[in-house]
Amino acid sequence: MKRDMLFIDGLQYINWNRQLFEEAQQSGLNAIHVTIAYWENIRETLQNIGHWNRHFINHSDLIMPVRQAEDILEAKRLGKVGIIFGFQNCSPIEDDVKMVEILQQLGVRIMQLSYNNQSLLATGCYEQRDSGITRFGREVIAEMNRVGMIIDMSHSAEESTLQAIELSQRPIAITHANPEFFHPALRNKSDKVLHAIGESEGMIGFSLYPFHLHNGGDCTNEEFCAMIAKTADMIGIDRIGIGSDLCQNWDYSTLEWMRSGRWTTTVDHGEGSAASPSWPEQPSWFKSSKDIGNIANGLLAMGFSEQDTAKVMGENWLRFFRDSFAPASVK
Amino acid sequence: MKRDMLFIDGLQYINWNRQLFEEAQQSGLNAIHVTIAYWENIRETLQNIGHWNRHFINHSDLIMPVRQAEDILEAKRLGKVGIIFGFQNCSPIEDDVKMVEILQQLGVRIMQLSYNNQSLLATGCYEQRDSGITRFGREVIAEMNRVGMIIDMSHSAEESTLQAIELSQRPIAITHANPEFFHPALRNKSDKVLHAIGESEGMIGFSLYPFHLHNGGDCTNEEFCAMIAKTADMIGIDRIGIGSDLCQNWDYSTLEWMRSGRWTTTVDHGEGSAASPSWPEQPSWFKSSKDIGNIANGLLAMGFSEQDTAKVMGENWLRFFRDSFAPASVK
Repeated sequence: MKRDMLFIDGLQYINWNRQLFEEAQQSGLNAIHVTIAYWENIRETLQNIGHWNRHFINHSDLIMPVRQAEDILEAKRLGKVGIIFGFQNCSPIEDDVKMVEILQQLGVRIMQLSYNNQSLLATGCYEQRDSGITRFGREVIAEMNRVGMIIDMSHSAEESTLQAIELSQRPIAITHANPEFFHPALRNKSDKVLHAIGESEGMIGFSLYPFHLHNGGDCTNEEFCAMIAKTADMIGIDRIGIGSDLCQNWDYSTLEWMRSGRWTTTVDHGEGSAASPSWPEQPSWFKSSKDIGNIANGLLAMGFSEQDTAKVMGENWLRFFRDSFAPASVK
Repeated sequence: MKRDMLFIDGLQYINWNRQLFEEAQQSGLNAIHVTIAYWENIRETLQNIGHWNRHFINHSDLIMPVRQAEDILEAKRLGKVGIIFGFQNCSPIEDDVKMVEILQQLGVRIMQLSYNNQSLLATGCYEQRDSGITRFGREVIAEMNRVGMIIDMSHSAEESTLQAIELSQRPIAITHANPEFFHPALRNKSDKVLHAIGESEGMIGFSLYPFHLHNGGDCTNEEFCAMIAKTADMIGIDRIGIGSDLCQNWDYSTLEWMRSGRWTTTVDHGEGSAASPSWPEQPSWFKSSKDIGNIANGLLAMGFSEQDTAKVMGENWLRFFRDSFAPASVK
């Protein structure tokens, strides 16, 4: 592993504690996009942000907030992990477009327009019908463009995703998903979406969540890196990164919250099933942040140049964040 | 009027529109502490902040947000009015000490610990018994000290105010009230409180709200300036400023909200009375921001030096804000 390579993880969802921050810091990760809301309303989201503000004080030797892309380089210089706030759903803004700027002021830099289900903004990837971007959704996209908040369509449906790419004045991201050609799952993305991301200078982060992988937890590093190579050939080496979707230290009740929120009185197994409802087993070569270097080594072994490997492991996200986090007026 | 003198108003409560922003800008006011909450919970407060964020966009030629004291000098250079966010009550933080930092991140720089009534933090000036600063209150004072948010005791009871001065590691303010010796009102402050403010290097802003004035709306500019002179003799020329409590463009329902919030099913007339329930008539020489220069002229006529007049009109608030707005760790 190249120890001086910039490592950015485009999405993790972890029940953080000091030990896990230490692990992330020792792994060489320079920045992580962390999830701070799935179904939370704004009051609950403020509580989560308040919780993170205490993390920044209590673990200031290990982590720091990322407000601008340059903060990631500062984190690298200081040997800390930069933390980027993101939402997997638009529930925190409730029905109020003005909450976009307020949440941006509190550090939120990435928001998904929908999470599996229909939202007030867009359709989720598990709905039967995809009605595209709503009237409110158009307003929120414009506001996110203005303040500098990345539109993330990881859990959104196809037509909604294509419309978001069209409507947004700035490139959008799929922070954590894989190509459908690698593994057919509702969460993975069609060639059409991949090409649209590439042509619009957006980004896709490759996921290590077993339900997104060929052969699930048995997927090999070689298969994963071959998928990266194929996608690079399709949409360009500059449009791809890692968004591991690493989930750690949660019990089953959190998985239930992610999947079912408050929207169903029954059990929704999401990507799991009644036979196997719980957290899936990670691939042996990617069980924690410590294994991030295995991907870099896999890419080098696959024949990626050191420069291209560096792009995939972090440089592409850094460039994309630099273009995305600044308010539109001062771009 | 000295047109190059720094003018800061330590409190106004106005139903702002473009015309009133223009008036404030033309008045020569360089900064105003504006009230954005009385009884609002955090969700309602976010809505008010969102409303102000739109003001900053829609009237960017006239106003700008003040995050640090230096922004006031920048506003003066640009010929704009700097806006400082403040709460007249602690309702926005609800029961959650972590909301202090979150609201500071959104620009709030001043918060009263109680408004007339008992709050979760302190006793208000209209309660029969004053139980002082609560357990939660001590925690919030420490947190406000840490993040750089001014403790304002304008509407608090005496013992609570004296305890806040003692407990706070940083000087506190009474942004808008007058001495009791000038006019005996529950809202005005005893010699004991005035001395405690002076000795702790705090600040008091003198109010033009008729219920705080000798002879109400008939109070003369000379009487008002003589009161300022007497207070300066008592506690020092560096501890005093203006906090006009100017209220404009509100109907009676807003006065009812200020006075009765959601805490009573009957009518509370606050400083008014059943015979005269509505907004009081302002003194003829202070009806709007445009009249701010009349106070400066009154002080000069009273024999204040130009330097001392400048201190009262704005320099003292500027120095106090410079010391108060920075987070404790970087002081």
